[in-house]
Amino acid sequence: MLGGMQDWPLLVWKLIDHASANHGSREIVSLTCEGTEHRTNWREVRSRAMNVAEALTGLGVGTGDRVATLAWNTHRHVECWYGISGMGAVAHTVNPRLFEDQIVYILNHAGDRVLFFDLTFASLVEAIAPRLETVEHFIAMTGEAHMPTGGRLSLICYETLIAETSGDFSWVQVEETAPAGLCYTSGTTGNPKGVLYTHRSNVLHTLGGISKDALGLGSADTVLPVVPMYHANAWGVPYATAAVGAKLVMAGPHFDPETLQRMILKEGVTMTAAVPTVWLALLQYLERTGKDLGELERVVIGGSACPRSMIVDFKKKYDVEVFHAWGMTEMSPLGTVGTLSASALGMDEDAQFDLKTKQGRAIFGVDMKIADDDGRDLPRDGKAFGHLLVRGPWIAGQYFGGDGGVILDEEGWFDTGDVATIDSEGYMQITDRSKDVIKSGGEWISSIELENEAVGAPGVAEAAVIGLPHPKWDERPLLIVVPREGAHPTKEEILHHLEGRIAKWWMPDDVVFVDEIPHTATGKIQKTALREAFADYRLPGARAA
Amino acid sequence: MLGGMQDWPLLVWKLIDHASANHGSREIVSLTCEGTEHRTNWREVRSRAMNVAEALTGLGVGTGDRVATLAWNTHRHVECWYGISGMGAVAHTVNPRLFEDQIVYILNHAGDRVLFFDLTFASLVEAIAPRLETVEHFIAMTGEAHMPTGGRLSLICYETLIAETSGDFSWVQVEETAPAGLCYTSGTTGNPKGVLYTHRSNVLHTLGGISKDALGLGSADTVLPVVPMYHANAWGVPYATAAVGAKLVMAGPHFDPETLQRMILKEGVTMTAAVPTVWLALLQYLERTGKDLGELERVVIGGSACPRSMIVDFKKKYDVEVFHAWGMTEMSPLGTVGTLSASALGMDEDAQFDLKTKQGRAIFGVDMKIADDDGRDLPRDGKAFGHLLVRGPWIAGQYFGGDGGVILDEEGWFDTGDVATIDSEGYMQITDRSKDVIKSGGEWISSIELENEAVGAPGVAEAAVIGLPHPKWDERPLLIVVPREGAHPTKEEILHHLEGRIAKWWMPDDVVFVDEIPHTATGKIQKTALREAFADYRLPGARAA
Ligand SMILES: Nc1ncnc2c1ncn2[C@@H]1O[C@H](COP(=O)(O)OP(=O)(O)OP(=O)(O)O)[C@@H](O)[C@H]1O
Ligand SMILES: Nc1ncnc2c1ncn2[C@@H]1O[C@H](COP(=O)(O)OP(=O)(O)OP(=O)(O)O)[C@@H](O)[C@H]1O
Ligand SMILES: [Mg+2]
Ligand SMILES: [Mg+2]
Repeated sequence: MLGGMQDWPLLVWKLIDHASANHGSREIVSLTCEGTEHRTNWREVRSRAMNVAEALTGLGVGTGDRVATLAWNTHRHVECWYGISGMGAVAHTVNPRLFEDQIVYILNHAGDRVLFFDLTFASLVEAIAPRLETVEHFIAMTGEAHMPTGGRLSLICYETLIAETSGDFSWVQVEETAPAGLCYTSGTTGNPKGVLYTHRSNVLHTLGGISKDALGLGSADTVLPVVPMYHANAWGVPYATAAVGAKLVMAGPHFDPETLQRMILKEGVTMTAAVPTVWLALLQYLERTGKDLGELERVVIGGSACPRSMIVDFKKKYDVEVFHAWGMTEMSPLGTVGTLSASALGMDEDAQFDLKTKQGRAIFGVDMKIADDDGRDLPRDGKAFGHLLVRGPWIAGQYFGGDGGVILDEEGWFDTGDVATIDSEGYMQITDRSKDVIKSGGEWISSIELENEAVGAPGVAEAAVIGLPHPKWDERPLLIVVPREGAHPTKEEILHHLEGRIAKWWMPDDVVFVDEIPHTATGKIQKTALREAFADYRLPGARAA
Repeated sequence: MLGGMQDWPLLVWKLIDHASANHGSREIVSLTCEGTEHRTNWREVRSRAMNVAEALTGLGVGTGDRVATLAWNTHRHVECWYGISGMGAVAHTVNPRLFEDQIVYILNHAGDRVLFFDLTFASLVEAIAPRLETVEHFIAMTGEAHMPTGGRLSLICYETLIAETSGDFSWVQVEETAPAGLCYTSGTTGNPKGVLYTHRSNVLHTLGGISKDALGLGSADTVLPVVPMYHANAWGVPYATAAVGAKLVMAGPHFDPETLQRMILKEGVTMTAAVPTVWLALLQYLERTGKDLGELERVVIGGSACPRSMIVDFKKKYDVEVFHAWGMTEMSPLGTVGTLSASALGMDEDAQFDLKTKQGRAIFGVDMKIADDDGRDLPRDGKAFGHLLVRGPWIAGQYFGGDGGVILDEEGWFDTGDVATIDSEGYMQITDRSKDVIKSGGEWISSIELENEAVGAPGVAEAAVIGLPHPKWDERPLLIVVPREGAHPTKEEILHHLEGRIAKWWMPDDVVFVDEIPHTATGKIQKTALREAFADYRLPGARAA
C-alpha cells in the first residue's frame, strides 16, 4: 500500500542529539575522582561524546565491539556511554565493587577491547591487567595532571585523547536492533549473567521510563541518580534525562549521606534514585543532624524491597514521595512503579502507604503474569502468588553469549525468578525470590514481607529472613537483625511487634542479632552468604527434635 | 552476536490490552447520540473492540483493508478504532463536517470497504451512498431501538453485530510497520491529503506524547479530548489514555461550552484538548455565567495559534495551565509543546506568558530545523524565520496513494508548509503558513503574530489578517475583525492598541469588521475563503495609487 511513515531507527545517540539541540545549556554537574565539582551541559557532553566516538574509531574499535568502563557516575562516564554506542560499539559498564575474580571473569567473558577507568581503579586495573585476555587499550578517565604513574601498563589519557580528535565525525547509523550496551546482573543468586541491550530496547525503555507514572521526568527536573551506571544502566536515568532535557547531577565516587544531602540541596534536586540501603543511611543521617531534603519531590527506590517504614518516613518527615520500583538487569531495568491509582488517591494515608509498599504496576511495554509451578496462570486477586513472568521490547531474549541457553518459554515469557502477587488493579507485590522462598508445611512464607515488618520494629536498622531446615515443617524462618545505633531490641520485643502484622504461622522461630548483614555489590542482602553463615544454626524447635 | 532483546512488535492493540490488564476498571464516560450518558471502562471497551474485530473478520474484511468511521468521540468510536486496527485493517476516521463532495472524495480515495456511522449522519450516509464506490457494509453505531428507518440502504446494527460474535478471537499479529490508521488533513490550504499511520508510528507517538512535557498523562488523570478522533486522531488521546490507564471522557456530538463545562466539573476532568475556537466560546461562557473549571489543571491548545490573551485568561481567571502545542495530521500529530523550561520557571509571569505563546519545544522523536528558500539551514536565534522542516518516526514519509509524489528531501526532511523561528532553547514559534505569509517590500510580515496581538485588543473576539496587493509594497496586511458580543471597537482603537506591540511597518493598512470569519471543518480560519471574499477590496494606499 502506498503511504506510510518515515523510517527513523531508534538509536541511542538520538537521545543526546535531542538534548543538545533542545536543552543544550541544561547542566550536568559531577563530583569527579580528582575531587573537583565539574559543571558542563548536554551540548558539551554530546560534543565530547562524539570525540570519544572518533577516538575509538581511531583506535580500531569497530561495530559490535565491546568497550568497558570501570567508573563512577560522572559526565565523563556519560560521554563514554554515548560515545561508545554512538560509533556502533557496545558500552559495557562493569561493576567495580565486584570481587577481582568476578571483574576479570566478566571482562574476559564480554571480550572487551578497550577499558575506560576512573582514577579510583588505577591499581585495580594494574592488578588484573595480566589476566585480561582481550583488552588492548587502557584509558584513564582524567587529564594529564592526574595521570597515574609508576604502573607497568601503558595508559591513554582520556582528556588528551579527546583533545586530539578532529571533531569531524558523525554518529554511526546502525540497525535499531544492533547492540548498544552490555550489563551483567548483580550476581545475587549465582554468577553474573550478561544482558545485551539494543539501541531499540534502550530507546523504548527510555520512552516508557520517562512517563508520569514511571520516573515522571520533564525538562524542569533535576535528577541525581545515586544508582550507578554499572547497576542496570543507572535505571536508565542518563538516557531519560537526555530525552527530556533534565538537569543531571552525578555524585561520582560518593554515596555517603552527607554528600548526597549536600548535593540535593545545593543543586535543587527534584528526583533521585537508589537502592534501600542508601536511603537507610540517608534517613539516619537526617535524623541525627536535623537536616532536610530541600526541593526533593520524588525518590525512586528499587533493587530490593523498600520497607513500608521508609516510605512513611520520607513522606511524613520530608514530604518526599517514594516511587517503589521493581526491575531487573534483564529488564533494562524498569518493570513496575508504585504510583498511586486514581482510586487510591481517595484512600486514607495508611492505605496509601500499604499500596505504595507493593512494587507497583507495569509500565506500558511490560506484559506481566504469575503462574504456578506447572505453568498454569494464577488469578490477579492480590492473594495468589507464583512465578512472575514478563514479556516486552526491553526484556532480554537471551543472555550474552547464549549463557543459560533458551530463557523464554514457547509464548515468549521470561521467568524473572521472583515470586509475586498481582491484584485486580494491576499492582504487583514481590513476596520473594523463588530461591529464597521458605517452604513451611508445604506452604510458602514470604521472607520479604517478614523483613519489611521487622524493619518497622523499634530499634531495628536492617533485617533479613532465611529459611532453616526443620524436622516437622521442612523449613522455618530465622530472623536476623541489625540493631540501630545505640538500640538494644530484644527477641521478645520484635516478635511482639510482628504479632497481628503477619500470619501466625509465619512467626520466625528465632531472632538473632548481628552487627552487619552481608550485601552484594549492588547493595542487596546476600542471602546465599547468610545461609552459609547460619548453616549450622539450629532453630529452637529443631533443637528439641 | 549472541544475546539481545525480545522481539515485541509495537502494535496498537497492546495499548488497550495494557489498559485492560492494569487499569481495567478505569472509566470511559460518553455522551451518546441517543442522548444518554454511557459509563463503561477499559476492560469492557477492549472486549467489545475485540468483538468488533471478530465481526469485521466475519464480514470479510482483511489485513490492510480500510474501514471508515463517520462518528463523534464516544466509547463506540474507540471500540471501532481498536477493533479495526486490531484485526489488521486500517481505521479511517472521516471528518463529517467536511462538505459532502469532500466526504465522498475521501471515502472513494481511501477505498473504504465498511463504513461505521453515528446516528447524526444517517441521512448524510443515505445521501452519499450511491456515490460511494467501495463501501460494502454500512454499520449504524447504535442499538436496535434506535436504528434509522425509512432509508433505502440496508444497514447493520452495531450492537447486534457485537452481540452475535462468539467472543473467541485474538488480535492479529502484523508487522509493526503495517498500516493501522488513516486520516486526511484538514484541507485548509487545498484538498485534504491522506496520511497512513502504522502500528509502530502510533505506538511511538503515544510514548512520546504521554511524557511530562507533552500531554503529561498518568493513570490518575481524567481526560476530555474535545478535539475529535477524526481530527488527527484526537491528537493521540485515545491511545495515550490507554497507555497510562487514565479516565476518558467523551462529549459525543457536543462542543458547546455549557456541556463541556458541565462534563469538566462532573467528571473531574484534569486535562482537556481542543482548537482555540472551542476555548474562545468556553471562556466567554464562563465570563457570562461566572462558572469555573473545577479540578481542571491543563488545556492543550493547538491546530491554530493560541493567542496570548487566552493563555493569560486561563491562568489568571481559572488557574489552568495552557500547553500550547503544534502539530499536523502528517505528524500524528504532535510536534512541539510549550511547557516551561527550567530557566523560564524563574521568570516573571509576563515573560512566561510570552514564552507560552510560542508553539514550544520538540518532543523526543521530532527532529526540527528551519531553512531559507534555497534550503540553507537558518540559525536557532529566535529571530531568523524560515521553512520549518521535520523528521521522525511518526511523521509521514508519503501521502496515501502516493499523492503529491515524493514529499521528503534527500536527507529525509519533510517541509511542514509552516514558517517559524526557533530560539537557542529550542522553542519554536510559527509565524505563518508559507501560503499565508504577507510579503511587503521584500520582507515577510507574520499574519499570525498580528492576529494574536489584535485578539488582545478590547472588544475583539476574533481576528484574521490577509495580504492584499499593493502597488508599492507588493502586499500589505488587511485586518479582519469579529467584535465581541455587544462591543463596538473602532479601527483607530485597534490600531492604537497595536502600536508598540508590533514593528511599525507591520501596521495593517486597514481594518474591516465582519460578523463571522469562515472556519474549516477543524475550526481553523479559512484564509483561502477570506482572500476570495476580499479579492476586490482595495486598501486605502492602493486606492490612491
Ligand atoms: N522493589 C523491589 N522489591 C523486591 N525485589 C526487587 C525490587 N527491585 C528489584 N528486586 C530484585 O532484584 C532482582 C534484579 O536485580 P539485578 O538484576 O540487579 O540482579 P540480581 O537478580 O540481584 O542478581 P542475579 O540475577 O545475578 O542473581 C529482581 O529479580 C528482584 O529479585
Ligand atoms: N499551535 C499552532 N499554531 C499555529 N498553527 C498551528 C498550530 N497547530 C497547528 N497549526 C497549523 O495547522 C497545520 C496542521 O493542520 P492539519 O493537519 O489539521 O491540516 P491543515 O494543514 O490545516 O490542512 P491542509 O494540510 O489540508 O491544508 C500546521 O501545519 C499549522 O499550519
Ligand atoms: Mg536476577
Ligand atoms: Mg497541512
